[in-house]
Amino acid sequence: MTLIYLDNNTTAPPSPEVIRAMTPLLTTYWGSPMTPHQKGEELYPFLSKFYTTIYTCLGAQPNDQLVITSSGAEAVTHVISSIYRDVTLATGKNQFITSQLDEAASIMTITHLEPFGCVGKMGETMNGIISIEKLANSLSPRTALVSLSLANGLTGVVQPISEIATLCKERGIRLHVDITHAFGKLDCQFETLGVDYLTLHGEQIHGPRGVGILLVKQGIQCSPLIFGSADQGGMRAGSIPMANLAGIACALEEAIENRDFLCTETARLRNQLERGILKGFPSASVCFKKQERVPHCTTIFFPGIANESLLFSLHRKGICATIGGGNFQQLGILLSSAGIQQPLANQAISFSLSRYTTEEEIERAIPLIVESAKTLSSLSYPSFSIA
Amino acid sequence: MTLIYLDNNTTAPPSPEVIRAMTPLLTTYWGSPMTPHQKGEELYPFLSKFYTTIYTCLGAQPNDQLVITSSGAEAVTHVISSIYRDVTLATGKNQFITSQLDEAASIMTITHLEPFGCVGKMGETMNGIISIEKLANSLSPRTALVSLSLANGLTGVVQPISEIATLCKERGIRLHVDITHAFGKLDCQFETLGVDYLTLHGEQIHGPRGVGILLVKQGIQCSPLIFGSADQGGMRAGSIPMANLAGIACALEEAIENRDFLCTETARLRNQLERGILKGFPSASVCFKKQERVPHCTTIFFPGIANESLLFSLHRKGICATIGGGNFQQLGILLSSAGIQQPLANQAISFSLSRYTTEEEIERAIPLIVESAKTLSSLSYPSFSIA
Repeated sequence: MTLIYLDNNTTAPPSPEVIRAMTPLLTTYWGSPMTPHQKGEELYPFLSKFYTTIYTCLGAQPNDQLVITSSGAEAVTHVISSIYRDVTLATGKNQFITSQLDEAASIMTITHLEPFGCVGKMGETMNGIISIEKLANSLSPRTALVSLSLANGLTGVVQPISEIATLCKERGIRLHVDITHAFGKLDCQFETLGVDYLTLHGEQIHGPRGVGILLVKQGIQCSPLIFGSADQGGMRAGSIPMANLAGIACALEEAIENRDFLCTETARLRNQLERGILKGFPSASVCFKKQERVPHCTTIFFPGIANESLLFSLHRKGICATIGGGNFQQLGILLSSAGIQQPLANQAISFSLSRYTTEEEIERAIPLIVESAKTLSSLSYPSFSIA
Repeated sequence: MTLIYLDNNTTAPPSPEVIRAMTPLLTTYWGSPMTPHQKGEELYPFLSKFYTTIYTCLGAQPNDQLVITSSGAEAVTHVISSIYRDVTLATGKNQFITSQLDEAASIMTITHLEPFGCVGKMGETMNGIISIEKLANSLSPRTALVSLSLANGLTGVVQPISEIATLCKERGIRLHVDITHAFGKLDCQFETLGVDYLTLHGEQIHGPRGVGILLVKQGIQCSPLIFGSADQGGMRAGSIPMANLAGIACALEEAIENRDFLCTETARLRNQLERGILKGFPSASVCFKKQERVPHCTTIFFPGIANESLLFSLHRKGICATIGGGNFQQLGILLSSAGIQQPLANQAISFSLSRYTTEEEIERAIPLIVESAKTLSSLSYPSFSIA
């Protein structure tokens, strides 16, 4: 049974080029760049190359502050914790706004600040999109931060960040955007987005495990989350793992090189998957299909089928997909809060492709998914008709 | 010029076995263990093996809580931040005690808590050892935590942790000990040490870059530092980098296997280095030589010679050593606070060996160090006699 991996938004295989880029930094150039001798000095050309690549790929200015973190979750926690320290404690602004659809890191970090006198507000959404009007009404002089994901990793829906950025600028409110699921699919240049903080997790772009990125607009104070040594300009203690830095720089570069491919060929395969499933199981439907979505993922409703059962059935057939959890919220909770009625909210599965997904895999996956859906459907309907 | 690397307490080369252990988890088994499908499931045997190794090597009980972090600095920040959240906010206990000689992470994290109504106190030291009597006097009903390193990474001096642990237990105060520079040299079993929190950075034991360990005694509440997903039992968000987990488990195992070697052969080479330098440059002396020290490192005074100059001269001869900084405090500041008078406090250099250090390297290093010291001394003395 050859695996068909359609869970790339949870974690995507590191690219061979990423592994190649990391290897010399694991085995040969293992020093710490903070040491004033050869083993540190020999890393300077690497540091310079990797940082230049990262700044270029993310469209950052030389004075924007870059922090290499251990994950997207760390980067998000860093942003929100520093706002509390640097803004809330100084100015009393204690309101933090995120979306009901956002990822666990934002929601959990904001929730964690509530005992410290902060107020978390969940921006309301309509069809997966945050409502600009309702967001505007919920902003107040006490709002410290709006924190959002550019694209949702389960449904793929893209938020109207440029309108939100304009709104936040007008009101003098800081804006954080996580681009984990959008990078390499949409234009995610830091300057163009017009945001104050940008975060990214490396795994979803075929990068190394255990690395994330935080970019902070120049001039914005951002106190550390992890204290100790003066690494990374004092922004994050703990000597920087050079192999991860090499890997994430390589992954960013490759993601940009492959963006056209993702937006054409991978989008075509995603659409083919959707059409194939809907044709074979006509009661299925695509979630938020009318919205702007990133090209590589989709959430599909299978009415009448509990999504755990379907996921388990697919798992036994060698198809990897997701119903959320892990870095995501549970898909059912997310869809409920986006206005999808129960039990339909718990009858959806998310598939995410990558540049390595082939047409052969999609063609092989469709009948297997349809077969599982039909089997589970025939098991479920009698119990409905009895009730 | 073949490098003689005597800066292993800043960072030590990852062992070939560690790299071998990491490789399959980078290239083949790249999934996330939190995903309920094959790519997650195939990691379970690895997880079980690595965790068992780590618990065994650290002498932890099954119910003690293990958190894999991205560094020792993160682990230390995690301990101290959680004490603030879980103890200070609940009980009002707001006093945090560390040693003047401790590493940057403890001191900086405690300092950072001062604006939040916490009080940091630096336990006084005598000849590199914390004074139990003075520590006992400085404890109060408001003391939340004592945080210390078992061994100092620059001077090698070992703190009397068992006496401190007894004292803390009597007073109902939590104790955190960092064992980074002691693991693989001393007995560092969690149970035996009698502490509540244990932290370790992976680099100094030939582990991967970017991994640390936090152990929390069972029953002790320890809220997360990084929020989001439910990874690691909710103790740390961000999917666990399996390759790093493989690497640190392997490094711990190898460190224990090599402990006898470190305590005999490496100790012999360290003593040989000390004797050779003192013979060639008789005004030199070994710092805190009468104290219990870990077997692989030494700080040596070179009276009349500014340590930056000596470090730079050694650097040009291919010898890597340190005067602190990075994860450490500056050696001069550390020695000053330990009662060494200026300018002598700024005339010391620290050397740290590893199991890879050879007699040939030590024999080659001695005359080079002596030569540098003599040259710099002849440059310095005339200026003294003019003055």
